[in-house]
Amino acid sequence: MLLETKNSTGLLGVSPTGIAPTIDDVALHASVSRQTVSNVLNAPDRVRPETIQRVRLSIDTLGYRVNRNARNLRTGTSKVVAYRIPPLAGRLNSVMDTFLHEMTEALELIGYHVLLFTSDSATGEIDTYRELAAQSAIDAVIFAGTERQDQRPERLVASRVPFVSFGRTWGSLNHSWVDVDGRAGTRTAINHLLASGHRRFAWLGSTTGSVVKDERELGVRETLQAAGVPAADLHVLNLVDEPNTDRRLVSAVLDLPNPPTAFVSMSDLQALTVLSELDSRSIVVGRDAAVVGFDDSPIAAYAGGGLTTIRQPITTVTRELARLLKNQLTDPSSKPEGVLLEPELIVRRTG
Amino acid sequence: MLLETKNSTGLLGVSPTGIAPTIDDVALHASVSRQTVSNVLNAPDRVRPETIQRVRLSIDTLGYRVNRNARNLRTGTSKVVAYRIPPLAGRLNSVMDTFLHEMTEALELIGYHVLLFTSDSATGEIDTYRELAAQSAIDAVIFAGTERQDQRPERLVASRVPFVSFGRTWGSLNHSWVDVDGRAGTRTAINHLLASGHRRFAWLGSTTGSVVKDERELGVRETLQAAGVPAADLHVLNLVDEPNTDRRLVSAVLDLPNPPTAFVSMSDLQALTVLSELDSRSIVVGRDAAVVGFDDSPIAAYAGGGLTTIRQPITTVTRELARLLKNQLTDPSSKPEGVLLEPELIVRRTG
Repeated sequence: MLLETKNSTGLLGVSPTGIAPTIDDVALHASVSRQTVSNVLNAPDRVRPETIQRVRLSIDTLGYRVNRNARNLRTGTSKVVAYRIPPLAGRLNSVMDTFLHEMTEALELIGYHVLLFTSDSATGEIDTYRELAAQSAIDAVIFAGTERQDQRPERLVASRVPFVSFGRTWGSLNHSWVDVDGRAGTRTAINHLLASGHRRFAWLGSTTGSVVKDERELGVRETLQAAGVPAADLHVLNLVDEPNTDRRLVSAVLDLPNPPTAFVSMSDLQALTVLSELDSRSIVVGRDAAVVGFDDSPIAAYAGGGLTTIRQPITTVTRELARLLKNQLTDPSSKPEGVLLEPELIVRRTG
Repeated sequence: MLLETKNSTGLLGVSPTGIAPTIDDVALHASVSRQTVSNVLNAPDRVRPETIQRVRLSIDTLGYRVNRNARNLRTGTSKVVAYRIPPLAGRLNSVMDTFLHEMTEALELIGYHVLLFTSDSATGEIDTYRELAAQSAIDAVIFAGTERQDQRPERLVASRVPFVSFGRTWGSLNHSWVDVDGRAGTRTAINHLLASGHRRFAWLGSTTGSVVKDERELGVRETLQAAGVPAADLHVLNLVDEPNTDRRLVSAVLDLPNPPTAFVSMSDLQALTVLSELDSRSIVVGRDAAVVGFDDSPIAAYAGGGLTTIRQPITTVTRELARLLKNQLTDPSSKPEGVLLEPELIVRRTG
């Protein structure tokens, strides 16, 4: 049987052997008030560094423990948010690694940790959310890459699991999300390339259908159309994420009588394929051809001596997601909110 | 006050309102044995999919909950492992993103989840481990990038926090680790380049001192020395992780009277700098020059039409780390074990 000691600040110490030291013992030992000890544990920014050091030393010396499981059991919260780390297979979107880092940091600022899991399927993903929530192992869910037929919002609402998504509500259900306007991103890129004098274009999408791809392609198409560029001067290449095959697709379009001179792609990684094919033909990128990536992932600054790319404002995305999540978890009357952010064209050497 | 219902299988249901449904209620509702319900929750691989579906339906219908916090409080475990997600600033090592994915998967196979946190400092990292462990929020720690003066092993042992590391014990302390033999990796790369006829080399390390860098550089130096290559024919470039500066460093060495023809670098990303500089000088990579990266990160297959690189066996690394961690957590008599894995040279177009 566990012995529990509870005190007026609401902190709970648990010891399997007998009487545990209380927050009062720590306060006495450190010659501070009970409130100061509580602040060191819960709001250290309110306490001077020297005091934090002294209180921590007392906590260590006495072996005082705030048992999170006991607190969680009492409050019904875990202060943990689940996130499915995307599969590695054919993963071209290294911006999601940046997203995970920034999300971890943004959630820490509101007092939450990220719990990771993997899943091979959409069904498995939803089951895991529900099981973790049912076990009170998580308070909420963050997921990414919403699709038109996305099951997750509806299922999570039905299971009463709070969530926010990186990706819009494409279905009818209203929920809180943050998204980056990919259509606006490719529009800016195409306008930039038109201003640089390009008249023949290639859009490098992927065979994997996604609403993200559709939006970005739409931005390309509508901007070229508005500028009066004939449809025949836009080559749409759907890459398969296999380097040799993709390179042959790029090669084939360069073999045409009037090949495109401006390439806009779904990701920075895809842009690498174009860069190496252009280099192998001694076409000088930045002078005779332009290549624009998407994401401004870490490789962009290095690729081709500096890849022009469409930057996703990931830090803002994650701060907004954390804000919407906090609203939802702390204010039951809060309304669903959607935040659409504009990406930014980062012009470097390649275009 | 919370009401708790406990039953013979050791599962615990908690309800803030009154009597919670028990595992027996679920078993009765689903017309299965209590053991089968327990298996569905704890060892679903032992149960037929139809039965799992039926039991899950009963669990949902009755609102049965295995409260993880209650279980954790009772067992003193959390089934969670802490991992510090590395800072983004100047992060060239995208192999750590792969590592995190593979680690999450490997830990799931032994029944654990990864809890992420960030930290700006080594001291902050250790403090977070201790605090999470003290709160029983985690059972163990996995960390990466061990250094010679690493404080973490000693501090974690002192705090009785179980851990394993991706990176050797460089100090005197004995603990369980898995590492990749970087020295063997660059040795293999240099021997491959010597066999291809190269006689003048460049090693691209970094100004950031690390034991990982030292080991890899040692592999380059000792292999060239053993092959009788004069020390003057090895150019050591310490890149600063700033693309323009790094490119000028590479450019300067190519301006020398007898420039190197073979480049081995600390990471695939650094290799991009070399590739773009060689391309801009119309030096044909794969014919007149060779470039070898490190990691076989996702970019390697795309860069330069296929970057030759030294692959780290990340899946094996994470499975071994999970095995060593499980030993430590389940068998108090288990001894510290170190596992050193050989990387593999993946030969593609660039060398």
